[in-house]
Amino acid sequence: MPNELSAPTSSTAASLSEITSAARRAAAPYAAVSPKVRAGFLDRIAERLEELGDELIQTAHRESNLPIARLTGERGRTCSQLRMFANLIRSDAWLDIRIETADPARTPIPKPDLRRTQVPLGPVAVFGASNFPLAFSVPGGDTASALAAGCPVVVKAHPAHPETSRLAAEAILGAVSDCAMPDGTFGIVLGGVEEGRALVLDPNIYAVGFTGSFKAGKSLFDLAAGRPRPIPVYAEMGSVNPVFVFPGALDTKAEDLAKGYAGSLTLGVGQFCTNPGVVVGVGPAFDAFVDSVATHLSAVSAGAMLHPGIQASYEAAVQSRSNDARLHCHLAGGGTAPALFSTDAQTFIASAVLREEAFGPTAIAVKCQEFAEMHQVAEALEGQLTATVLYQDSDVADVRAILPTLVHIAGRIVANGFPTGVEVNTAMQHGGPYPSTTDSRVTSVGTAAILRFVRPVAFQDFPDELLPEELKSVKA
Amino acid sequence: MPNELSAPTSSTAASLSEITSAARRAAAPYAAVSPKVRAGFLDRIAERLEELGDELIQTAHRESNLPIARLTGERGRTCSQLRMFANLIRSDAWLDIRIETADPARTPIPKPDLRRTQVPLGPVAVFGASNFPLAFSVPGGDTASALAAGCPVVVKAHPAHPETSRLAAEAILGAVSDCAMPDGTFGIVLGGVEEGRALVLDPNIYAVGFTGSFKAGKSLFDLAAGRPRPIPVYAEMGSVNPVFVFPGALDTKAEDLAKGYAGSLTLGVGQFCTNPGVVVGVGPAFDAFVDSVATHLSAVSAGAMLHPGIQASYEAAVQSRSNDARLHCHLAGGGTAPALFSTDAQTFIASAVLREEAFGPTAIAVKCQEFAEMHQVAEALEGQLTATVLYQDSDVADVRAILPTLVHIAGRIVANGFPTGVEVNTAMQHGGPYPSTTDSRVTSVGTAAILRFVRPVAFQDFPDELLPEELKSVKA
Repeated sequence: MPNELSAPTSSTAASLSEITSAARRAAAPYAAVSPKVRAGFLDRIAERLEELGDELIQTAHRESNLPIARLTGERGRTCSQLRMFANLIRSDAWLDIRIETADPARTPIPKPDLRRTQVPLGPVAVFGASNFPLAFSVPGGDTASALAAGCPVVVKAHPAHPETSRLAAEAILGAVSDCAMPDGTFGIVLGGVEEGRALVLDPNIYAVGFTGSFKAGKSLFDLAAGRPRPIPVYAEMGSVNPVFVFPGALDTKAEDLAKGYAGSLTLGVGQFCTNPGVVVGVGPAFDAFVDSVATHLSAVSAGAMLHPGIQASYEAAVQSRSNDARLHCHLAGGGTAPALFSTDAQTFIASAVLREEAFGPTAIAVKCQEFAEMHQVAEALEGQLTATVLYQDSDVADVRAILPTLVHIAGRIVANGFPTGVEVNTAMQHGGPYPSTTDSRVTSVGTAAILRFVRPVAFQDFPDELLPEELKSVKA
Repeated sequence: MPNELSAPTSSTAASLSEITSAARRAAAPYAAVSPKVRAGFLDRIAERLEELGDELIQTAHRESNLPIARLTGERGRTCSQLRMFANLIRSDAWLDIRIETADPARTPIPKPDLRRTQVPLGPVAVFGASNFPLAFSVPGGDTASALAAGCPVVVKAHPAHPETSRLAAEAILGAVSDCAMPDGTFGIVLGGVEEGRALVLDPNIYAVGFTGSFKAGKSLFDLAAGRPRPIPVYAEMGSVNPVFVFPGALDTKAEDLAKGYAGSLTLGVGQFCTNPGVVVGVGPAFDAFVDSVATHLSAVSAGAMLHPGIQASYEAAVQSRSNDARLHCHLAGGGTAPALFSTDAQTFIASAVLREEAFGPTAIAVKCQEFAEMHQVAEALEGQLTATVLYQDSDVADVRAILPTLVHIAGRIVANGFPTGVEVNTAMQHGGPYPSTTDSRVTSVGTAAILRFVRPVAFQDFPDELLPEELKSVKA
């Protein structure tokens, strides 16, 4: 057995190497499994997760503090993702197939037959996140997209939810067995930082998927770049997701926007990568908007954060901001209290502390003197997963002026909405310029996430009998 | 003027920063140029290059030792590449546009409108190669694809052909002026290793295109990964491009294959990234094939290499191989003599020196005892741009057995042909696993090369008036 599910807290170096070697041995046979059969395997994982019933939800609830309703929804999303990738690979459309047929009569040299498809990279290491114990963890989007691409997966389970991870891993291993996938198609590694580093450095690993903190993601990126054979690291590390409120919108719908903003900020106790932690506006109407946001935040019942480490980091971040910005509200309570700060544009631009993400329900309102200063704030921001504009018709010229800057810094631009709530479909882009991710050219959510785990290969002058099915002139 | 064309051999740090700052300032206005107008600009560069006439060809000939006919062909390819990318961006097909329309009635939450396209990364640094003073240099594929993608380009000219670089740069700057592109859309930096390093570290640079040696490419990759904001490096660093000759083919067409192989090996004095430097086979028929290759090589008139540095490296590589493998032929002559070595499979697998690329017309024949050993050789090879199989009908089962291993190590697999001669079209994959490149997920030749210089952005709930043209519901 290549897995160590019986070890409660760590894998030994020997067992890690056994697990990754099994994944490497599985790579060729798993890549050779037909896409239709691979799709059935993904569907079977979803069924196995559903068959776990209440046990999975209750275990995740106990380990994460997340509400039952949220976790039930997250399980639904997790299974939908698996089925979405299963359906994606039932067609060849995602492979970007390019075929140039031969022209033997071409001069000065004959034109060869050239057919290009995508092949799996090899075993992928997936690092589960603590804030989505299902949808971004063991059976989450990284695992689903890598398995769909034809890559074996070795998950490094997040220590915040070991039992949830174990249950999900057993479901996946059950599906491996049900569908007769090669031994080693899926493996799991328990443990902490050292096990994670060893996994990224393991010569049998060909790519890394990660969702979590900047510090952890960047350290894995650096390790991978320094390997004898460097490998890609797809680390989604979060951002402050700035929201720009334009004057016309403040004139006509300030109250609705304040309520919506406070709701987005505190959703899931602010523990989303797309949490809108910075809001930018101009003039007295913006002051009134900020006061209104504070009022709405005061009415939010405080929730429990994922684990004590995150809670402590949040309180420390709130504390450090207090030195540089004015605290508007931070109500003590039974749980984690939202905290709203405000400052002026130049102070914000000058302060690295204020521009940094603080994971949790806290925001900084940046008060500008004029529109030009809003633009300056946008230009001072680093790479973001999202940027949002709240505007109405009279603001369109200003929005058009700032939009190229927002496109330059962000992966998704939201109009008159809020960035939390990440759709899982063909058009989602969840990823943006560094430091929000280590690779802005890809997404970690939606069907395009599969493209992270393949590379192109061209076949020159091959006959049908030796070509991959999708490249044959005459399909079976 | 942001450029330093008047300085003969180097740019000062100040001028480099002026050039990259101009590129950064040009990024937004150049990205905003409509694709049709950008296409006209690329076409105009091709016209300007053609208008240089004989002067360009003669200058390149003087600086590179490459024959006039070859350079005339290379100019044709260079202009074709520019026009190919121009035509590519006249349609939206390359943008992988994904549109999900809204469903306000969806429960529990309404579905937003989501539209995904690609946007340029920002200014790109391009490092010209010495072996293609036009097609992989100042006006080459990296420049053409980055400009087509909407990225300003700063070229680091190769010191082996400064005057050719200067002429090409003037043609591009002329086209910038003719088509009223933003100042800074194109810049050129002269100088050596230090100027190259400074360019990769420059904060205004967002990606790097490179073709050249492993040592130089890897050092740029390391520099870029260590920047405060890491950037992608697309370094194409060459490989040994193994050729596997199967028994049936040796029985039926050994003489044709030996002649073809010797021709591919010595084409352009062996100075191609796809030069087939390793040939692998079994049994006495393979011995006869190797002898025949040696005979053909002896008949090849020796040519001059690109510059004395490459010539010296070639002679040193031939010398170092002589310690580990048997020299079959290495005829002295007026120019660079082809050198053919042979060795057994286990010696080859054990020797890092023999498995390393030696740039020039030299090859190692690897003699195996049985087919299983050919497979072992394939498994021992590192990442390759290409792998080739020479076979006939009776070999199909063996080819099928080895093919997954070749797909795992290479970007292009050639059947019954030779890897030199890289088609420039939609289906080409010129790039493979490390160390043949630093990013196996892309190609540096063919239309897909444009994808290196863009990243996806999704627009959520935007009205037509604020969307990029290609995402509008109603097109203009």
